Amino acid sequence: MRTDYCGNINADFIGQEVTLCGWVNKRRDLGGVIFLDLRDREGIVQVVYDPDLEEVFAKANSLRSEYCVQITGLVRGRPEGQINQDMSTGEIEILGKALTILNKSAVLPLDWNQENSEEQRLKYRYLDLRRPIMSDRLKFRAKVTSAVRSYLEGDGFLDIETPILTKATPEGARDYLVPSRTHKGEFFALPQSPQLFKQLLMMSGMDRYYQIVKCFRDEDLRADRQPEFTQIDIETTFLDASGVMSITEGLIRDLFQKMLNVDLGEFPHMTFADAMRRFGSDKPDLRNPLELVDVADLVKDVEFKVFAGPANDPKGRVAVIKVPGGAALSRKNIDDYGSFVGIYGAKGLAWMKVNDLSAGIEGLQSPILKFLNEEVAMSIVERTGANDGDIILFGADSANVVTEALGALRLKLGEDLDLLEGEWKPLWVVDFPMFEEVDGHYHALHHPFTAPRDLTASELAADPANALSNAYDMVLNGVELGGGSVRIHDQAMQSEVFRILGISEQEAELKFGFLLEALKFGAPPHAGLAFGLDRLVMLMTGATSIRDVMAFPKTTTAACPLTDAPSEANPEQLKELAIATLVDKKAE
Amino acid sequence: MRTDYCGNINADFIGQEVTLCGWVNKRRDLGGVIFLDLRDREGIVQVVYDPDLEEVFAKANSLRSEYCVQITGLVRGRPEGQINQDMSTGEIEILGKALTILNKSAVLPLDWNQENSEEQRLKYRYLDLRRPIMSDRLKFRAKVTSAVRSYLEGDGFLDIETPILTKATPEGARDYLVPSRTHKGEFFALPQSPQLFKQLLMMSGMDRYYQIVKCFRDEDLRADRQPEFTQIDIETTFLDASGVMSITEGLIRDLFQKMLNVDLGEFPHMTFADAMRRFGSDKPDLRNPLELVDVADLVKDVEFKVFAGPANDPKGRVAVIKVPGGAALSRKNIDDYGSFVGIYGAKGLAWMKVNDLSAGIEGLQSPILKFLNEEVAMSIVERTGANDGDIILFGADSANVVTEALGALRLKLGEDLDLLEGEWKPLWVVDFPMFEEVDGHYHALHHPFTAPRDLTASELAADPANALSNAYDMVLNGVELGGGSVRIHDQAMQSEVFRILGISEQEAELKFGFLLEALKFGAPPHAGLAFGLDRLVMLMTGATSIRDVMAFPKTTTAACPLTDAPSEANPEQLKELAIATLVDKKAE
Repeated sequence: MRTDYCGNINADFIGQEVTLCGWVNKRRDLGGVIFLDLRDREGIVQVVYDPDLEEVFAKANSLRSEYCVQITGLVRGRPEGQINQDMSTGEIEILGKALTILNKSAVLPLDWNQENSEEQRLKYRYLDLRRPIMSDRLKFRAKVTSAVRSYLEGDGFLDIETPILTKATPEGARDYLVPSRTHKGEFFALPQSPQLFKQLLMMSGMDRYYQIVKCFRDEDLRADRQPEFTQIDIETTFLDASGVMSITEGLIRDLFQKMLNVDLGEFPHMTFADAMRRFGSDKPDLRNPLELVDVADLVKDVEFKVFAGPANDPKGRVAVIKVPGGAALSRKNIDDYGSFVGIYGAKGLAWMKVNDLSAGIEGLQSPILKFLNEEVAMSIVERTGANDGDIILFGADSANVVTEALGALRLKLGEDLDLLEGEWKPLWVVDFPMFEEVDGHYHALHHPFTAPRDLTASELAADPANALSNAYDMVLNGVELGGGSVRIHDQAMQSEVFRILGISEQEAELKFGFLLEALKFGAPPHAGLAFGLDRLVMLMTGATSIRDVMAFPKTTTAACPLTDAPSEANPEQLKELAIATLVDKKAE
Repeated sequence: MRTDYCGNINADFIGQEVTLCGWVNKRRDLGGVIFLDLRDREGIVQVVYDPDLEEVFAKANSLRSEYCVQITGLVRGRPEGQINQDMSTGEIEILGKALTILNKSAVLPLDWNQENSEEQRLKYRYLDLRRPIMSDRLKFRAKVTSAVRSYLEGDGFLDIETPILTKATPEGARDYLVPSRTHKGEFFALPQSPQLFKQLLMMSGMDRYYQIVKCFRDEDLRADRQPEFTQIDIETTFLDASGVMSITEGLIRDLFQKMLNVDLGEFPHMTFADAMRRFGSDKPDLRNPLELVDVADLVKDVEFKVFAGPANDPKGRVAVIKVPGGAALSRKNIDDYGSFVGIYGAKGLAWMKVNDLSAGIEGLQSPILKFLNEEVAMSIVERTGANDGDIILFGADSANVVTEALGALRLKLGEDLDLLEGEWKPLWVVDFPMFEEVDGHYHALHHPFTAPRDLTASELAADPANALSNAYDMVLNGVELGGGSVRIHDQAMQSEVFRILGISEQEAELKFGFLLEALKFGAPPHAGLAFGLDRLVMLMTGATSIRDVMAFPKTTTAACPLTDAPSEANPEQLKELAIATLVDKKAE
């Protein structure tokens, strides 16, 4: 039906007759000549209809936006002055000779010239995706998955499918359930990740596995989450953490080089402890130059209890952020930041402006100066390296509150004051704690199959609180791109971790019996990682939401305005499944 | 941890020290020397431990089957007479110098030297997959998907993901349902195919789409079906049936060439009517040389009512199969085939042996000869081309019964008598009827989005019973590899098809409103096809079940003996989902 794509026609085609199919992007009548912008996946080309071909001209004149048409015409150079260097097809136009209307179009319910509501965009997603910015993102995503596959397959990885109808997995979020008809009263769960299956594949000797795979979490969709999302899932045998990190770092570096012509360089490594201390986050955005600077040792002996209290409490923290040029912040600005850190539990935001360093304490301006002697004040200034015109902002509270509040404040300041430096700043965060303690219970910081770092089972049992895991997260521009770990391949170690997590032997047997069993039969050392594909593509395309890099995402209430899913089920089918709903839809 | 894979070590490595990881496939003690077969994904290599390295020898002596080990040693040529040309590593062995036991293994619950029950194999799937025949199949499958992707991407197809949590689709089988927590009382359905989404993608101008994607059908798992299976899903815009067939035939031909070094040649085309008439099947196995031959016109006037009845009934059929050499079949054999066709509703199996063609009717042997005159008998023999030693088997009944019974008998004879010729016999079956009529109702033979062939909506409405669809099935060796069609892109046509199918306007609006709506906005002509990946890989690997080419299949009752899915759900979670089960598991 066509000889090429619209977007491919350029000066090389001059003098040739082409047949193209696509949509009317725009139709203009200029001085009795019809100009048509014809659009397909690869771009837009201009077609011109002269009135001397009466029948064709009349048809061209009847065209409206988004009609689907087939045209035949002669490619010719555009007249001097009409050349458009911004378009790949901008040097040529097509003199239309024939025109077939393949399908008409009603007026679109979306106006592409203005912002449309998310609900409307999703309801008419097939129209929203006609916008070049949207189709370009899907094309980009397809190229990313293709490049990922080719990199991994070139490195001996096998694409192996794991089940979607499976058993509840312990990732923490809620599972989606699927009632079984053949085993009434029982349910499958949709996987939150193929974690256990990929480990079993390593135990079966498949050696290197990858899969670009849908995962499911029935979470409250605050922030930018989707009920189904896509992972680049990787697992390897006989490799340690550095082996996996080297392969996966190579993959991302290769991807940025190929797709964006960006050299990410070698990724720095940072311990979890350093990341929390310096940036107040386990996924620091290194484009942001601000850092948290600890000053507890300097304020230990001041009379100001707000500082001295946390400074002398082993669970307290006193830290500051120096903001270059921040002395220009107004009182209102500072108050607003005070409210902002309040969200994270901070009780206020002490501050100190550096107006004139040469004047000593006289050159400082701060409501708390009266509580600090000159030596303390100047030593704080000195430690931060603050200069004239800077501001120092204080956090003093429990370590958790200070770290979280200043970590968040750091990001907000970076954005508000436009401080970000450089385009891409990747890093590895390593040496995570194995567990976090909440109310006397240990929780796995990654998941319960993560191996501790350099510890035997009995060493781990002796001091779980201080154990580090053999886990690693890849972070880019403050976004966690992926995370992974060396897995436990020793049955005694796995049982010990379950015990520390408070999982009884009976519960472990019920939930993970098959894993514990599998560890008995020569399970090999193995390690892996999973990337969030949606987030990766979002970052790479500069989109602001993962919804903008998915063909058919759901709303924040996990619904699809296009197909109207979810919807009521056929009562006959529910009967067959031996389930009943406890909601009377009609009564609502 | 290793320098290479076990299976890669060959004579090129002689004189080199290698470190390998893998599993003890076999350990033998021959004359005080330990011979170890070490296995990994790529193959098996022989390692030898001499007693002179005491400590290492003792460790090697302690090894048992399936221990996971790391070895270091020197590659050397095998002594004359011990060379094994059947193994890629058969010319060399490794003189073991170091040995680390990475993990011990209990005695396996599967005995690889004998047939294990399906239940056991699935329960210990990770061990079953260690068998080279199984891991080779998964490796082969990964190579197939890789080759498919590279072919399609090279041809401009974009890999685009469609939702798994979606709305009920009309493919006919039962949907799996997923209760929604945020929209209580409502359900998602898992897709039986991405049919409507891929059509919407064409309407959004994505032009060429493919996806290797999981699909779900909650069917009774008779035969070789799985609740989740994988499709190679393809859709194109601005191509007609021959365009899609050319691309997809090229894909399969390329795959057989690359993977099996087989040239499939050009695929013949056969109409549905011809396939049913000649082979009694819409997916004929062309390796089987037997054909159904119609003889109704020859027996119209005989007194034998069993033949004359159907021969004179417009809905009847009288046909025969000539079996070369079949005169050697015993009375018992023929009786058994008579019972076999009884399964398909045939009331008996008349037969005629050709003993001596030169003797005319005297040379024929048959219980029904007395009902036929010589001219009729000899004209039947002549039409089948039967020779001395052949048998002719008769079907006379309603057309459906004869076609189905003789179609099945043909396959059974082909197998029993080892008649299959050639290894690979692909073909296209085309010109299917749009609808089949059951009890006065029309059903879509493909699906309700399939376009009719060369008919307007009003022509279709005038005579639905005789309308042909623009659909095409690819068949290989009697297996339907894939099927597709040109889709309806015209709203009036789509509404007409829904009407013929007895779908009310209200129901159409409720179920497919979004599709009808989408057809309003310049929907382009589009067409596609979907292959069953599992069946394709099964055929190509010579496996006899799709379960043998899946990593973690389910049993015939849709259960997973490995993870014990499905299982009972947490009552708290059911409460959150606002559903209740109507089965008291404890009472059972």
